[in-house]
Amino acid sequence: MRINGFLGSAVDAGIKYKGRLDLGLILSVRPAAAAAVFTQNEIKAAPVIAGIRRMTGGGPYVRAILVNSGNANACTGDRGLADVEDEKLLVGRALGIDPDDVLVSSTGVIGRPMPMDRIRDAIPGLVKGLGEDRLDFVAQAILTTDKVKKTAVRDIEINGVNIRIAGMAKGAGMIAPMLGPPQATMLAFILTDAQIDPRFAQDLLSDAARQSFNRILIDGDTSTNDTVFLLANGVAGNPIIEKGCGDAVFYAALKDLMQDLAGQIVADGEGATKVVTVTVQGARSIDEADAIARTIAASPLVKTAFFGNDPNWGRILAAAGRAGFRLDQDRIGLAIGGVEIVRAGQGIGDNAEIKAKEVMSGKKYEVVLDLGLGEATTSILTSDLTMDYIRINADYRT
Amino acid sequence: MRINGFLGSAVDAGIKYKGRLDLGLILSVRPAAAAAVFTQNEIKAAPVIAGIRRMTGGGPYVRAILVNSGNANACTGDRGLADVEDEKLLVGRALGIDPDDVLVSSTGVIGRPMPMDRIRDAIPGLVKGLGEDRLDFVAQAILTTDKVKKTAVRDIEINGVNIRIAGMAKGAGMIAPMLGPPQATMLAFILTDAQIDPRFAQDLLSDAARQSFNRILIDGDTSTNDTVFLLANGVAGNPIIEKGCGDAVFYAALKDLMQDLAGQIVADGEGATKVVTVTVQGARSIDEADAIARTIAASPLVKTAFFGNDPNWGRILAAAGRAGFRLDQDRIGLAIGGVEIVRAGQGIGDNAEIKAKEVMSGKKYEVVLDLGLGEATTSILTSDLTMDYIRINADYRT
Repeated sequence: MRINGFLGSAVDAGIKYKGRLDLGLILSVRPAAAAAVFTQNEIKAAPVIAGIRRMTGGGPYVRAILVNSGNANACTGDRGLADVEDEKLLVGRALGIDPDDVLVSSTGVIGRPMPMDRIRDAIPGLVKGLGEDRLDFVAQAILTTDKVKKTAVRDIEINGVNIRIAGMAKGAGMIAPMLGPPQATMLAFILTDAQIDPRFAQDLLSDAARQSFNRILIDGDTSTNDTVFLLANGVAGNPIIEKGCGDAVFYAALKDLMQDLAGQIVADGEGATKVVTVTVQGARSIDEADAIARTIAASPLVKTAFFGNDPNWGRILAAAGRAGFRLDQDRIGLAIGGVEIVRAGQGIGDNAEIKAKEVMSGKKYEVVLDLGLGEATTSILTSDLTMDYIRINADYRT
Repeated sequence: MRINGFLGSAVDAGIKYKGRLDLGLILSVRPAAAAAVFTQNEIKAAPVIAGIRRMTGGGPYVRAILVNSGNANACTGDRGLADVEDEKLLVGRALGIDPDDVLVSSTGVIGRPMPMDRIRDAIPGLVKGLGEDRLDFVAQAILTTDKVKKTAVRDIEINGVNIRIAGMAKGAGMIAPMLGPPQATMLAFILTDAQIDPRFAQDLLSDAARQSFNRILIDGDTSTNDTVFLLANGVAGNPIIEKGCGDAVFYAALKDLMQDLAGQIVADGEGATKVVTVTVQGARSIDEADAIARTIAASPLVKTAFFGNDPNWGRILAAAGRAGFRLDQDRIGLAIGGVEIVRAGQGIGDNAEIKAKEVMSGKKYEVVLDLGLGEATTSILTSDLTMDYIRINADYRT
């Protein structure tokens, strides 16, 4: 992917493994309005703590993002924070920009000190390699257990001006993002050549995160490092986007792009063979629908039934019943891929199950649970739980 | 196991599979004070709904427990409730006792009608087979994905009278019991020849359930059928147990026996290779300690690290951090099997991890997370997440 006014570069710094890109740099040719959302896990990685501090108050313009895989710089105490400052300084000096205009992001193993000597040695090459055609290498460098690179691009027109939004993301495990404004290990970097006020960009990013990354769940474990950065460099020269002026078109494209990236993360979930949309409708409130959908999406018994193409709807109802809300089991309905399988709390019969099993043998389908209690509806995108998930995570660090 | 005044029997009724015991009966030779705790899942199986009704108000004396595996009689609507009444009637008639003095319990697949014709055909043989030496066959008949039978016996003396408490349990998956008075699919039947008032027995059982079955978690999925029955037939002829009269000795033995059975369930958890005690200390409240311990015990990333003998403490801290309580990451300490591995939120080093890995290669150890915030402590007993778990649950119903 390419986008006006942004350069990318990536190198193999040997942070954890040799022979793979693990350090990336994104540079905006001019100060870019920045917005961010970070994990709300109480255990926060050093770059997240530093990022929250930088973004607090809102409104900053920044120039660059330095990102590494292989080491999360989490649970590293004061040294971890000092290492983030050093990274900013190293990049700032190499680029001739203010170190405070460098955002830092990390993903990888928790609790290991950052190999600062390797990063220091790698930065000259990283800066030298910057190019308009190198953003895809950054998207490659941020991967950990991901099998595929995740990028998306949207082109829109606002007030006659062509604008592009381009995004990259990573994430396959420890995925249950709870992103809040300045405060997933999913990472996503969204770049746009649009001109937009950073505070307004923050509002749009926070809303879009709630409708995208915050609506996916792979294993239910929320990371210490989840970070989404939006950088808008204004190179397109559009009239500044604000309330009532181009914001609807921009927000729609931003949300669509973020949902695209979020979907790519679930499809590449650790060991995943399916993408399942769990929709809860007929709830008394969105919070109730959301909590029940998340409980179903995180249930090991439900997820293994997805893996086994087993329309074992009793597991779905049992998960809903333990989510902490009063239910009326006689009102519950369930459909899998449009096949009604439970009505009034009871199974509809073998034929429905045979049809549902057929749907479940596909790679993508929707489960709709109707509580019959109210009007609220919401969905969570999730994956199945497989033997490969166990294999990947029983020896992640070795 | 044997216990004075209780008979057992089990047959192969062909409820789901041929060639295995799947229907059991326990008979007390005289009316037994009954107490019970049931699942608090909002989706409740028919025998649980019927059991709650029977026990409401407390104080009943009953004669028998009919129990089957292979079918949970859950999500079966009015027909399921009618089937429970039929079961009580069939047993009542065959034994010449009041049908209301028969308790019913089921475990197995959700959403299938009970094969009442097979149960009806099996009951004469079941009653005919009753014997003092047949309780172990009941313990066998209640198993589903369990690999081993779970029984325990405690002998105590109260006021010079010898008293026995004997228990059986089943459960390997869908284990995260939330048991409440009259209101786990774990099943446990506890029999004693002690004389005790049923209301007082209910208080003791509820307390002991909180300290035993409610402190285990295999997959985090709470069943629709979890049931614990305590039957006390008084055959020992002790002075009635009440507050200040034998209750301390009785409660200690009851709790010890229930913890023993709960431990046997975790050791036989679906696919489990380890039993890990997750202790959270230094919390501000028991509720906080409990919620954090449960989040750690249910975390797929933590459980797969247990399976891989990987002292991946970052996953434990990350799980604690998403449990919904304010933490101070700089105060957190962690020890695995007595090996301190995290201090002040940071790893202690490679040597500690090597020692911890050694501990983790064992079959049983304790993880102690210290939050450094207060005085409250609690523990949850859990198992690891393995490839066998996936195998078992990706085709449970086939």
